[in-house]
Amino acid sequence: MIAVAQLKTEKVDQLRAQLENEIAIKAYKEGKIPFPDGSIIVALHWTRVPSEDNDKVPAGPFPGAQSFVVGSPVNMQVMVKDSKRYAATGRWGFGDFKDGNPADEAMHKACFSCHEPAKDRDFVFTRYAPF
Amino acid sequence: MIAVAQLKTEKVDQLRAQLENEIAIKAYKEGKIPFPDGSIIVALHWTRVPSEDNDKVPAGPFPGAQSFVVGSPVNMQVMVKDSKRYAATGRWGFGDFKDGNPADEAMHKACFSCHEPAKDRDFVFTRYAPF
Repeated sequence: MIAVAQLKTEKVDQLRAQLENEIAIKAYKEGKIPFPDGSIIVALHWTRVPSEDNDKVPAGPFPGAQSFVVGSPVNMQVMVKDSKRYAATGRWGFGDFKDGNPADEAMHKACFSCHEPAKDRDFVFTRYAPF
Repeated sequence: MIAVAQLKTEKVDQLRAQLENEIAIKAYKEGKIPFPDGSIIVALHWTRVPSEDNDKVPAGPFPGAQSFVVGSPVNMQVMVKDSKRYAATGRWGFGDFKDGNPADEAMHKACFSCHEPAKDRDFVFTRYAPF
């Protein structure tokens, strides 16, 4: 696992986690960019919801009603590095899935432009969160 | 990975992720409790911090300054199921580590009592978040 995040805007409130294959995590750990061919990064997005279960705990680290966990899955996003196949989009292929089904063409056309601000990090927003 | 969570109280503001070995995830997916011997669940806790990087994105899914990512590692907690070795504490052995070093005895004595409110779920707070 690379990292965890929360995205909260007027429209969404999500908990997010980023996973990776061995090629990608090796590049992360070594701090090398660009990521090598074969790198795969997967982002899981869930709706953030309160947790009554956690809030029931009477003592210890959960003293109040302020624990939030994952709710409904929102979508799963994938980046696959292939410098030949995806030369036109930063050498990354992008995918967006919900309930196992790919999003439509319009959604996929937006992937790369949204990642362009992270160009100096090889179009990858997520920083590695070591433990 | 099992799930992601946020814990926000007066004292802490953390992003959390829960990982597992194959024995534990199988039990999770089948909805079986108690967890079988050999189950291992690991919880990673980080300080939650704002992300200037994400907030720079001018369009798309990050329209405002409301993105939070992981900061400093807080601690790592482990539960290992062994019905013989840990019979006195719900058959779970508990561990708490920071920077690779175990917490003191007082901290470890608090593990089981804090997990007792989740007794009807075999002392495991985290629910499986499928995708």
